[in-house]
Amino acid sequence: MQKINQVLDAITRLEIQGATNVAISAVTVFAEFAHHLCSKHRPEFLAQLAEVRQRILNTRPTEPAMQNGINYLFALTHNKEVSPPELCELMDGRAQHYIELLQTSRAKIGAIGAKRILEDTKVMTHCHSSAVDAILIHAKRQRRTFQVIVTETRPLYQGRRTAKILLEHDIPVTLIVDSAMRWALRHFQPDIVLVGADAITSTGAIVNKIGTKLLALAAKELDIPFYSASSLLKFDPLTTVGALSEIEERAPTEIWSDTPPDLTIRNPAFEVVSREYLDGIVTEMGIWPPAMIPFIFATKFPEMHGESSI
Amino acid sequence: MQKINQVLDAITRLEIQGATNVAISAVTVFAEFAHHLCSKHRPEFLAQLAEVRQRILNTRPTEPAMQNGINYLFALTHNKEVSPPELCELMDGRAQHYIELLQTSRAKIGAIGAKRILEDTKVMTHCHSSAVDAILIHAKRQRRTFQVIVTETRPLYQGRRTAKILLEHDIPVTLIVDSAMRWALRHFQPDIVLVGADAITSTGAIVNKIGTKLLALAAKELDIPFYSASSLLKFDPLTTVGALSEIEERAPTEIWSDTPPDLTIRNPAFEVVSREYLDGIVTEMGIWPPAMIPFIFATKFPEMHGESSI
Amino acid sequence: MQKINQVLDAITRLEIQGATNVAISAVTVFAEFAHHLCSKHRPEFLAQLAEVRQRILNTRPTEPAMQNGINYLFALTHNKEVSPPELCELMDGRAQHYIELLQTSRAKIGAIGAKRILEDTKVMTHCHSSAVDAILIHAKRQRRTFQVIVTETRPLYQGRRTAKILLEHDIPVTLIVDSAMRWALRHFQPDIVLVGADAITSTGAIVNKIGTKLLALAAKELDIPFYSASSLLKFDPLTTVGALSEIEERAPTEIWSDTPPDLTIRNPAFEVVSREYLDGIVTEMGIWPPAMIPFIFATKFPEMHGESSI
Amino acid sequence: MQKINQVLDAITRLEIQGATNVAISAVTVFAEFAHHLCSKHRPEFLAQLAEVRQRILNTRPTEPAMQNGINYLFALTHNKEVSPPELCELMDGRAQHYIELLQTSRAKIGAIGAKRILEDTKVMTHCHSSAVDAILIHAKRQRRTFQVIVTETRPLYQGRRTAKILLEHDIPVTLIVDSAMRWALRHFQPDIVLVGADAITSTGAIVNKIGTKLLALAAKELDIPFYSASSLLKFDPLTTVGALSEIEERAPTEIWSDTPPDLTIRNPAFEVVSREYLDGIVTEMGIWPPAMIPFIFATKFPEMHGESSI
Amino acid sequence: MQKINQVLDAITRLEIQGATNVAISAVTVFAEFAHHLCSKHRPEFLAQLAEVRQRILNTRPTEPAMQNGINYLFALTHNKEVSPPELCELMDGRAQHYIELLQTSRAKIGAIGAKRILEDTKVMTHCHSSAVDAILIHAKRQRRTFQVIVTETRPLYQGRRTAKILLEHDIPVTLIVDSAMRWALRHFQPDIVLVGADAITSTGAIVNKIGTKLLALAAKELDIPFYSASSLLKFDPLTTVGALSEIEERAPTEIWSDTPPDLTIRNPAFEVVSREYLDGIVTEMGIWPPAMIPFIFATKFPEMHGESSI
Amino acid sequence: MQKINQVLDAITRLEIQGATNVAISAVTVFAEFAHHLCSKHRPEFLAQLAEVRQRILNTRPTEPAMQNGINYLFALTHNKEVSPPELCELMDGRAQHYIELLQTSRAKIGAIGAKRILEDTKVMTHCHSSAVDAILIHAKRQRRTFQVIVTETRPLYQGRRTAKILLEHDIPVTLIVDSAMRWALRHFQPDIVLVGADAITSTGAIVNKIGTKLLALAAKELDIPFYSASSLLKFDPLTTVGALSEIEERAPTEIWSDTPPDLTIRNPAFEVVSREYLDGIVTEMGIWPPAMIPFIFATKFPEMHGESSI
Repeated sequence: MQKINQVLDAITRLEIQGATNVAISAVTVFAEFAHHLCSKHRPEFLAQLAEVRQRILNTRPTEPAMQNGINYLFALTHNKEVSPPELCELMDGRAQHYIELLQTSRAKIGAIGAKRILEDTKVMTHCHSSAVDAILIHAKRQRRTFQVIVTETRPLYQGRRTAKILLEHDIPVTLIVDSAMRWALRHFQPDIVLVGADAITSTGAIVNKIGTKLLALAAKELDIPFYSASSLLKFDPLTTVGALSEIEERAPTEIWSDTPPDLTIRNPAFEVVSREYLDGIVTEMGIWPPAMIPFIFATKFPEMHGESSI
Repeated sequence: MQKINQVLDAITRLEIQGATNVAISAVTVFAEFAHHLCSKHRPEFLAQLAEVRQRILNTRPTEPAMQNGINYLFALTHNKEVSPPELCELMDGRAQHYIELLQTSRAKIGAIGAKRILEDTKVMTHCHSSAVDAILIHAKRQRRTFQVIVTETRPLYQGRRTAKILLEHDIPVTLIVDSAMRWALRHFQPDIVLVGADAITSTGAIVNKIGTKLLALAAKELDIPFYSASSLLKFDPLTTVGALSEIEERAPTEIWSDTPPDLTIRNPAFEVVSREYLDGIVTEMGIWPPAMIPFIFATKFPEMHGESSI
Repeated sequence: MQKINQVLDAITRLEIQGATNVAISAVTVFAEFAHHLCSKHRPEFLAQLAEVRQRILNTRPTEPAMQNGINYLFALTHNKEVSPPELCELMDGRAQHYIELLQTSRAKIGAIGAKRILEDTKVMTHCHSSAVDAILIHAKRQRRTFQVIVTETRPLYQGRRTAKILLEHDIPVTLIVDSAMRWALRHFQPDIVLVGADAITSTGAIVNKIGTKLLALAAKELDIPFYSASSLLKFDPLTTVGALSEIEERAPTEIWSDTPPDLTIRNPAFEVVSREYLDGIVTEMGIWPPAMIPFIFATKFPEMHGESSI
Repeated sequence: MQKINQVLDAITRLEIQGATNVAISAVTVFAEFAHHLCSKHRPEFLAQLAEVRQRILNTRPTEPAMQNGINYLFALTHNKEVSPPELCELMDGRAQHYIELLQTSRAKIGAIGAKRILEDTKVMTHCHSSAVDAILIHAKRQRRTFQVIVTETRPLYQGRRTAKILLEHDIPVTLIVDSAMRWALRHFQPDIVLVGADAITSTGAIVNKIGTKLLALAAKELDIPFYSASSLLKFDPLTTVGALSEIEERAPTEIWSDTPPDLTIRNPAFEVVSREYLDGIVTEMGIWPPAMIPFIFATKFPEMHGESSI
Repeated sequence: MQKINQVLDAITRLEIQGATNVAISAVTVFAEFAHHLCSKHRPEFLAQLAEVRQRILNTRPTEPAMQNGINYLFALTHNKEVSPPELCELMDGRAQHYIELLQTSRAKIGAIGAKRILEDTKVMTHCHSSAVDAILIHAKRQRRTFQVIVTETRPLYQGRRTAKILLEHDIPVTLIVDSAMRWALRHFQPDIVLVGADAITSTGAIVNKIGTKLLALAAKELDIPFYSASSLLKFDPLTTVGALSEIEERAPTEIWSDTPPDLTIRNPAFEVVSREYLDGIVTEMGIWPPAMIPFIFATKFPEMHGESSI
Repeated sequence: MQKINQVLDAITRLEIQGATNVAISAVTVFAEFAHHLCSKHRPEFLAQLAEVRQRILNTRPTEPAMQNGINYLFALTHNKEVSPPELCELMDGRAQHYIELLQTSRAKIGAIGAKRILEDTKVMTHCHSSAVDAILIHAKRQRRTFQVIVTETRPLYQGRRTAKILLEHDIPVTLIVDSAMRWALRHFQPDIVLVGADAITSTGAIVNKIGTKLLALAAKELDIPFYSASSLLKFDPLTTVGALSEIEERAPTEIWSDTPPDLTIRNPAFEVVSREYLDGIVTEMGIWPPAMIPFIFATKFPEMHGESSI
């Protein structure tokens, strides 16, 4: 129990970072916790497990990859025939499987998406996405020559992080300010725009870093292919049953540290891009039209899709 | 002659700043220089004057307000009946008149545009424009209550300058990062987008700070009225005879001071917004559809419009 | 047989109203009729059943919910191994199941859709839809505060009916004329447009009250989320095999009772809204992109999807 | 003075109706009133005249045709050389001239616009406009065969008025409900949409009956030519100096006489259609792109354009 | 009179080709004919002149450049004070002037438009236009390096003519089939699309070779600047007073010489492109927004603009 | 082995034409070849089979129907339990089945699509597609009256082939040049645009004859329903795992046989039309939204979908 508390604290205080790491920690600790309860009677076992599940989910209400993992394990309890010791065993298996899913998805996305990065391609991206990194680095390893245009991505300059990582892999990078996005689409005529996704919703929309809709709008105007790269595990099944994705707003000081008094600063972190702006989503199971993602998730991962599963 | 050199140096080295100040200095020095030549014969008078004119124009090839002023004075020489002493006299008058035009245009734009800033209006702007300032401050003086949303405008943060000036006049300001532009249009639902203009072209397009086309694109998508505020004297008559407005690109260090080696940074300063994105242009002679500006300029200022005048 | 005739008459003469009621009556009477034939030999049993099926389908050629119910029951006959008495038994089960599907779908749609009606939401709707009612009333029961803008919906003023029902549930309603639709979208900036559907087609389009496409067009222009709420049972599987949804045209006197001689009045009742205008469809199995509905129907209800089932 | 009061009362109480009639009464009474003051000294003459001018303008703040007429007469006083008796004489002339302008403009619009109504043309219109009537009746007199589709135009059914007038001239008319607008554009494929205008603004936009923007939006989607027919005298010169056209909102009972308690009804009467939706405006001086109207008005009627005249 | 008949015959039988040549012949023969009537009394003089004018106009009802020339000369007769001999004299002057206008306009268009053909520009064009030729050849003479993409322009392959002329001037040309237009815009990313115009209308639209609207539609989608090059003398003033430009349809055998029986072939020669697709029109008096062309024509050539002149 | 070589040669040298014929020959020869290897040990059997498979695939890298057939047969080898003789048997069955799928799909598409060709329908098509032929001929056999507009389709005039085939079935045809596409959509107002497809990709896009995107763009502008008719077997599963469809470019002499020296001619044969332009795709399994095709293919033909199968 103490360990649970430590891990949950670490997640909450952002000591554990990155959707994948958070999800791995969460499912690991959840499976371990179950083992401590193995010897209890089923009702007590379930009650305590449900309580911990809720506590874990609350640490990151907007991280589908972690939420899906916990739900995947917890779904085992729906089978009333299975005893607590058996459940613990099964949970270990699922925890293992989910961690594998997470770890292999990035490599698969890299291999699939890299086929779209042809020789002499110009790629435009925004912010930082490890799935996009995976694709570009995979393409580079195949000795293809291409260049990337990246926005600096105010206020936290994640675009600089993207630039540094790609430069380390000898990929030529051009950096621009965010408001030069449309100029860059017009000037460089990139062959593809490739961004990540923080979540995918039931209408096939993605939630991603603020500025993504602006980039999508300009790419659509200029008929430049626009893809998101994301694990299917980032699908948020609660949106299927009506919940709206929450959009985080962050501290004003990220934008201007010595803010003048009386000045209001708004700092929305994400925005929604609906499916009509997206040619396709590059997932670990292939490139699909955004409208298909909710169904593929529901079909492949019925236990994560939960009560809303079709 | 020495003074000419000093002034031209000051303009070139950016010691004299702002389109209006530059234009005032240039026409003043040009008229003064003419006085030194009054006693010469007409051919020599004209030759020397033409040479100085060219030197002045070269200091700022992309400042229509200054170029138009010099051409306005020089156009007097087209009348072959007039002697050098008479020309000098007339030039003084025109210099005086042009300076007045410049000085009164901002106030007139302020008064006209302020009528669009109604009680409880939300205004969105980008970068810094003294014409936009004039409008908002005029509206505030009329004790109207309204708020302004301004982008920070990377890389030079001119949006912060706008924010500070407006706050000094007790106008509530909200500041956002550039990539949150579309979010802000959607979230605040501003009643009007109001930007300045660095130049107006023969097709009714404006040249303005990078990011303006992006803002215009999103405002059109959402059907939010989009106006530019600009003196007619910023019309560039050379575009009527085919010249293209030049777009300046600035130093990469403006974006990232300790740029990693091998990283290319592009820093375009302006972009063109065509007339279909602009509901109207607020000028010192009223609000007009962009398509009319070239004709009004040609009609009102035939001497500035030059050889292309209709 | 007499009862069949009575019920079919009642359906034809519109004495039984509402898609759900019509469907319940039809499947009930169809299952009962089968029982009268239980003792016959299979060929005769099938022949008579097929004839009655056709008669029932003919009463309402454009009511997918009823057509789907009848086809669901009739599909049992495709199994050649089953004897008439067994078929009757099975049909009772299916009839029961279908009626349950119908009765529970509205409640589920209400619960799912209500999650999109957040505190202080503004909702715009057109005409009257019991699925939309269900969503709004569900949201109200959860003590949320929101308001609804409704068009009057000429010629039959179904918008007034919507207004009255919602007012009875203490939901604030604003009513406008149909041609003020775009004004209302612009003026109230609703968070969501929510309409019903009379049918869903194989391309993911909906058929709904005349004026819906106009509303969809203006909502798209202004980037306002647009959803339809509808049971999956309104999917029309015949459109998958090429049939076009029929659009009803009604009596001119609905529009102007004392029509001047020589005046032509056209009174189309419905229009088609294609999937690109719809963010999602709220069904009893969750919110889905419109493109998915035909496949979900085919997967969940293969017996209703019939020969076209994939 | 008593007569002035009577006329102003009649205008205010809507006893005098129609933009033209109101304008004729107003300029007539204003010129007559001037005659009563002829014998006064210039300062007193001007003071009293200015006061009455203001009273007249206040009766109808949103009727450009009347406002323009009064300003046309009053502009004579700007000439400081002219004595009151002379001014009275000149005002009579201008009043006469303005009334003629009003009376001939409709006939000219009819003759010019009728050239666009070819044999077998289908015309779509909305609400009632006497300029549109003039065009259609002129075309009919030239024995051309064509048909008109008209919306009923809720809440006041002005479309029925249009229908009756056209039927009296043996023009075939089809009437639809307002929400069938887009259906009608799609179904009848009209060759032209032709509406009137209540006012024209400085950006080339028109103000017209609610529903016009909706019709314009759908016509643009389907690439159907869209024209407004309007006298130049409906241009509102105050919009050039920044004023916004006022949009009237009318009584809720026009929409639903026995309104349920607690129901809010909004009844906006007009909406603005910007120039990009208008192929051209049919005026008494020809068909012009909307962007030209403000300039033509300023050029042709400098005295009405007033202080903003270029 | 015999000569008139010969010339009119030559024009009708297409022996005289090209808008400029036709216009020169027509105004020359018209002025000469006037001289034969100089000695007559004014009424007879006018009657015969009017008759011949009509005959000339009828030879080419859709050639604005010729129609404008004849009207320019004929407008002299509106001055009732002038005697036939004086009129003849004046007509000679105008004929001379009009021919000069025609001959200088192409060179001026070439010089103005060439400024838009920068080093390494890619230009896309459709069909053949001597104004476009003039621009490209002028740019080439200034030793600029650029390339041109041209459609073959079925059915008469005028694109091949364009290709040959440009190749003779050492301009690199790429030719494509008409249906590869959009592919070419996407693939080559031309900096500018430049087409000619057969006529300009009162709403700022151009009439040009079939396929031009298709090219304009795709260029707008991809935000590629689109200009037309045309003499102001191609403005059709009759469209201002309501006439519609006529669209010629040509022989089916142009498309397929051994047409199968029963096959219908439609061969429209031109289509209309409205002003919203055109960034500007390159004329002999500069580059202007299309909306301005009708007004500039009316202002510069009031005698040609005729009764509709403002 | 000799026979294999002969057939592969015939495919490569285009002696065998049409996607269906090529596919039939390829699977037949592949199954036959397997029989020659039946007696070998599994490793040798597999090695030789894999080699021949690759050789066959290489003959037509862009023919999904053939590629899918070969993969369907080869997928049998994934089952490690099955001996070579059994595999040969099974392959015969699959070859037979695949050939049947191919042969029946056209008839089914014809029957399904024909339901969209109502009495008095106007259909527009581009190029030649046997699936479109099947639909139109099926509709004609049902004695429906309709007409077809077809582009000539430069450079190879496949539109003439379409015209001839339809005329033989007494279907009235109108032929136009390619650049009159938009004119035809506007002039004839077709009820439906119906084209074939050479391939379908993982994002629901189709690859079809150059000019198809242009037609789709104009149809979308005018809101005219746009469908593609194609067998599901033309889906290219490699695009799901990231491969891009290859676009063939053909010989310049197809366009201009006596090409002038120095003239570049580009002759792209196909272009991609993304799913947002397509209302639906008419397949042998019904009409579906384009986004569904990849999933239906993966579900129905998992062996063809291969490693990417979900």
